[in-house]
Amino acid sequence: MSLSLSNSASKLQAIRWVRPRLDILDQLLLPHASTYIDISSSADGHRAIATMQTRGAPAIAIVAALSLAAELLGSSHQVAQLEAESAATFIEQRLDYLATSRPTAVNLFDAIRKLKAVVRNAVTSGEDVVSAYVSAAEAMLAADVADNQNIGRLGAEFILGRSLGNQLKVLTHCNTGALATAGHGTALGIIRSLHTSDKSLLEHVYFTETRPYNQGARLTAYELLVEEIPATLVCDSAVSALLRSDPSIRAIVVGADRVARNGDTANKIGTYQLAIAAKFHGRDFIVAAPTTSIDLDLDSGAGIVIEERSQDE
Amino acid sequence: MSLSLSNSASKLQAIRWVRPRLDILDQLLLPHASTYIDISSSADGHRAIATMQTRGAPAIAIVAALSLAAELLGSSHQVAQLEAESAATFIEQRLDYLATSRPTAVNLFDAIRKLKAVVRNAVTSGEDVVSAYVSAAEAMLAADVADNQNIGRLGAEFILGRSLGNQLKVLTHCNTGALATAGHGTALGIIRSLHTSDKSLLEHVYFTETRPYNQGARLTAYELLVEEIPATLVCDSAVSALLRSDPSIRAIVVGADRVARNGDTANKIGTYQLAIAAKFHGRDFIVAAPTTSIDLDLDSGAGIVIEERSQDE
Repeated sequence: MSLSLSNSASKLQAIRWVRPRLDILDQLLLPHASTYIDISSSADGHRAIATMQTRGAPAIAIVAALSLAAELLGSSHQVAQLEAESAATFIEQRLDYLATSRPTAVNLFDAIRKLKAVVRNAVTSGEDVVSAYVSAAEAMLAADVADNQNIGRLGAEFILGRSLGNQLKVLTHCNTGALATAGHGTALGIIRSLHTSDKSLLEHVYFTETRPYNQGARLTAYELLVEEIPATLVCDSAVSALLRSDPSIRAIVVGADRVARNGDTANKIGTYQLAIAAKFHGRDFIVAAPTTSIDLDLDSGAGIVIEERSQDE
Repeated sequence: MSLSLSNSASKLQAIRWVRPRLDILDQLLLPHASTYIDISSSADGHRAIATMQTRGAPAIAIVAALSLAAELLGSSHQVAQLEAESAATFIEQRLDYLATSRPTAVNLFDAIRKLKAVVRNAVTSGEDVVSAYVSAAEAMLAADVADNQNIGRLGAEFILGRSLGNQLKVLTHCNTGALATAGHGTALGIIRSLHTSDKSLLEHVYFTETRPYNQGARLTAYELLVEEIPATLVCDSAVSALLRSDPSIRAIVVGADRVARNGDTANKIGTYQLAIAAKFHGRDFIVAAPTTSIDLDLDSGAGIVIEERSQDE
């Protein structure tokens, strides 16, 4: 099936990088205010991730990487003046610190591993190390957008292929869009691609509230509104009744925090319950994630440590 | 299996009737304030039901019946001075008005049918009609408490019998306790009875938030705290993950708004999803309801009109 998909990034830009400046959309203030925060150091990046001003496994990795890039390029830092060895050591220490910001995000650990290899390979000078680091961080940003556009296209093609030319509805959980990634989104990227495809077969999107943190009600609602995609918010508990009453909801699409080698997936609470509901009602259940979310060191989901957020939340 | 169950009503009393005065606990203010409202007419009763100051299918029927009893016994009403025929007609009209307060509550329609028969059978005088009505309404209050204590005892015996002497946990949805009935409760009545049985086999209770109206987080939390039953609030979406991780959660117990002749049950949104989760994980799923919740005129659930509350909620 051939589709004409928009190649432009989504209208929303949660991560703005114009070298050497990083600004991120403060997601704690959405949907009431669209406020950007200047992230000029790895300490700023750590705080933004830990307090969930930025969230979503792919976005966390990018913000962490670019926060250190902003720090290295900042006027107060002279890492480029160091010997190559010292510069690399400094960067590695800051990356280890950034790794402590969120326990579940394998994308972050994967990004850190790759960035460490990059700085170890740049051996001529501190300037060379910093330059290699910044280029690698920027490449991650570009690659994530490109990955998501591919995920969106492939997912949309799969769903349209299964619907045999009929109009269809989909349901999604949590937020996996431009607010959770460098742009476009994973599960919500599929929905964006369905919406912009040349066939207007995407009749409606249902999205869950996603308790207790309301990522659906606050963030997915905001994205779908910006993109003008017809959509309805539903309670997490209402999904089964909705699937039963409306057979045109062909698929549930979700993202992933982490995927084990056998395909076991860790994601937002409620994802497992949705998978059972989809299976019970005979609908497709699609996990949309880049290969960076796959942890080949894990045989199965039993080894995945689930993050338990503070009781205050 | 023999159980020693407390016969006293629960500590909470949501409906207080001391002839001729009716006071109800305003459930919109719970758990922040325990405020009683004087209900002195059927208009007061209608408003309390429609605005959800009182809720729960059995409680609605009792409050409706007693609100009219309070009106008939009130000093401003002289229905007892009328001819029997006129008194009965007046009462019937007020009952028809009360029937419009909530569309789903079959217990209310059942109570109204029985009360109409009572006033038609009292033919000697207006005083006789009023007296018969008030006695019948009071009998409904007493019968509901007695029914719930029986439901609690039978449900507790069933669950304990299935657990073969092992400690167990249960999960419940919405609020079906002393706040939803004349006392003790249906599904929460079973939990009360389990808790007060001579074997301390009830290790823990999980209860859902119950979006969008939060009856679990607001009301069931309040009742379990008053009764000092060890309990934990969970998101509606977390139930399947919880069942999977904790096999000692032996049963999910829920109430019912209405049960059809074939056993199909209409209840709070989310109940169907919990039933699927229980089936998938091989746990007992128990619907606790008095016979007044069974609508023998309905062949199946397909005929049950589901109440959709105002969008504002």
